[in-house]
Amino acid sequence: MVGGGQLARMTYQAAIPLGIRFRVLADSPADSAAQVVPGAEVGDYHSLDDLLAFARGCDVLTFDHEHVPGEHLATLADAGVTLAPGGGALRYAQDKLAMREELGRLGVPCPRYTPVATLDEVAAFAAATCWPVVLKAVSGGYDGRGVWVCESAEQAARVLAHGVALLAEEHVSFGRELAAVVARSSHRQGATYPVVQTVQRDGVCHEVLAPAPGLAPAVAEEAQRLALTIADRLGVTGLLAVELFETDGGLLVNELAMRPHNSGHWTIEGARTSQFEQHLRAVLDLPLGEPQPTAPQVVMANVFGGTDPDLYSRFTHVMAADPGVKVHLYGKAVRPGRKIGHVTVLGPATGDWGGGTADLRDRALRAASYLGTGQEQGL
Amino acid sequence: MVGGGQLARMTYQAAIPLGIRFRVLADSPADSAAQVVPGAEVGDYHSLDDLLAFARGCDVLTFDHEHVPGEHLATLADAGVTLAPGGGALRYAQDKLAMREELGRLGVPCPRYTPVATLDEVAAFAAATCWPVVLKAVSGGYDGRGVWVCESAEQAARVLAHGVALLAEEHVSFGRELAAVVARSSHRQGATYPVVQTVQRDGVCHEVLAPAPGLAPAVAEEAQRLALTIADRLGVTGLLAVELFETDGGLLVNELAMRPHNSGHWTIEGARTSQFEQHLRAVLDLPLGEPQPTAPQVVMANVFGGTDPDLYSRFTHVMAADPGVKVHLYGKAVRPGRKIGHVTVLGPATGDWGGGTADLRDRALRAASYLGTGQEQGL
Repeated sequence: MVGGGQLARMTYQAAIPLGIRFRVLADSPADSAAQVVPGAEVGDYHSLDDLLAFARGCDVLTFDHEHVPGEHLATLADAGVTLAPGGGALRYAQDKLAMREELGRLGVPCPRYTPVATLDEVAAFAAATCWPVVLKAVSGGYDGRGVWVCESAEQAARVLAHGVALLAEEHVSFGRELAAVVARSSHRQGATYPVVQTVQRDGVCHEVLAPAPGLAPAVAEEAQRLALTIADRLGVTGLLAVELFETDGGLLVNELAMRPHNSGHWTIEGARTSQFEQHLRAVLDLPLGEPQPTAPQVVMANVFGGTDPDLYSRFTHVMAADPGVKVHLYGKAVRPGRKIGHVTVLGPATGDWGGGTADLRDRALRAASYLGTGQEQGL
Repeated sequence: MVGGGQLARMTYQAAIPLGIRFRVLADSPADSAAQVVPGAEVGDYHSLDDLLAFARGCDVLTFDHEHVPGEHLATLADAGVTLAPGGGALRYAQDKLAMREELGRLGVPCPRYTPVATLDEVAAFAAATCWPVVLKAVSGGYDGRGVWVCESAEQAARVLAHGVALLAEEHVSFGRELAAVVARSSHRQGATYPVVQTVQRDGVCHEVLAPAPGLAPAVAEEAQRLALTIADRLGVTGLLAVELFETDGGLLVNELAMRPHNSGHWTIEGARTSQFEQHLRAVLDLPLGEPQPTAPQVVMANVFGGTDPDLYSRFTHVMAADPGVKVHLYGKAVRPGRKIGHVTVLGPATGDWGGGTADLRDRALRAASYLGTGQEQGL
């Protein structure tokens, strides 16, 4: 796996019981995955030499992020390296303009968009849609980075001044955000997880509710169908996460990720096969595992650091306060606002479960906020 | 953790999400855990120097097996090393005679026993009980090794010829074997898992059914009460597995283990907190986690190697045949009869589940036998 972040760390956990020899190319020995994988290699994913050297020890190369340059992916493939997903598919996770154009060709509903290079172009798009306008970096963004909601031409001008290639998108008036995670193996076997609701603040995912509470079955099926269609038509090998807006007019596709995704972390305990195991099975062309949930409702909350770096005493408190909370730490130093872990809370395995989603969310949020900052903030 | 077997390997999997820095002292770099833990140390657990050197890098020392000599445990404790469990408790997992004597003092029901050194003593014990007589090595046995069921004085004579210290025990006529796994932390917090049935062949565990099907609630409670009492009175820190015989006259304690145990492997997917996470929490004096099951019925089957070392193609077949089977491989070379992994099958998370235990056992046994030997033998 190229990239040594928490996704690689959690993928390694899934690799151990399967007996899969997992190797990681990390930026630094301090990276989340490099701390836990024996013989982690340190190298630069921008360097073709580093990638080629790393690939020589691997049967299949997969990715913890979508930032490996497309020309390197092409060279690796030419050199006979098996990439999963391949460069042809990954292009659509790397280049938002190419993604929008391709999804348009496939008839997948998306927000209105246009590439923009000048303020006049932004203003013209805003005149045809409405302010605010969403400006997105065509490549390189993640976790809310590279996305700007502009209320005015002045704000848009400041974004244009960054000098990066941009896309303007209509600011969709949505009820909530959903995510559909599916897997597709090289043999084109597919598996779908229940559609989840993601709760974002400032463009960053804070909570995932699995399955999305009260989602109409027809909408859930449509989301899964869209995700499977996209995975198939783009030729994705491995996991595909499709972020969606639920609007009065139906579903719109917001973003794609071709790797394990934050919206699937709940599956570690919440599904018979975690997204990390599923990704490994898919990229190694093993038969996929049962994706069915292990509990009627699961809530995951991300842990963001505060100002106090002493995680240990808070960790003990959280475990004592709620013995049912599953804690996942990424081995990262605590810094304000940094995503350093997540927690998962599962509804009872059988029968009625009283408090419902609100109770689970409250428990997850309390644990996550206390763990990160020492402040216990529930729902 | 001293010892680099599969228990250490699975404990490491539980350590990663908790952010616990886990170190292992293995016999060889090829050991099950040494393959997956960064910087695994290689050393001899019979060597006090190796133990002391390893302990210098650890806050707490715990164990994958019970074979560290008692005098070394005492020296480590004198040197200020925190042992969990401590040498005082571990003695009862190492020395079956001391264990029987102590359980007798505690009023815990056990088979009749006596230390034996001569054939006359065995014959006298057999006269008072009945043939067959079970001879057990006082120390060093595991997985059926060090236990001999003797039908006659001739057979007993052959065992006596080994020259090891022996215990004679009555051959209990039991309905089935059960196991109660409990955890006890340094702060004396306790947690109990559901009582399971273990299915043994030739003294080796082949299957675990969790919970034990049709077990009378009063018997289950009695087994848990016995295990908690033993953990408390022997001062165990960490996990305690108590192997029991269910007889017409009630429960009898067969063996004790003070570490994660084969009868608890089902908890990896089958309980909210796995036995491995629970052991880590207990020995680090963290609050214990919820032990409740995630499914109404769980079956684990051990995988024993056959003559064909090519595990990979069988692995693919098992995954394709039953996407719900959870496969755990220990990274061991396949050799006939060697325990190289286990599989777990979970009953549906909610509602009725049709086929019941027989169906789950059949699935688990088929997967385990095919994985190990290429022969698919169900129930």
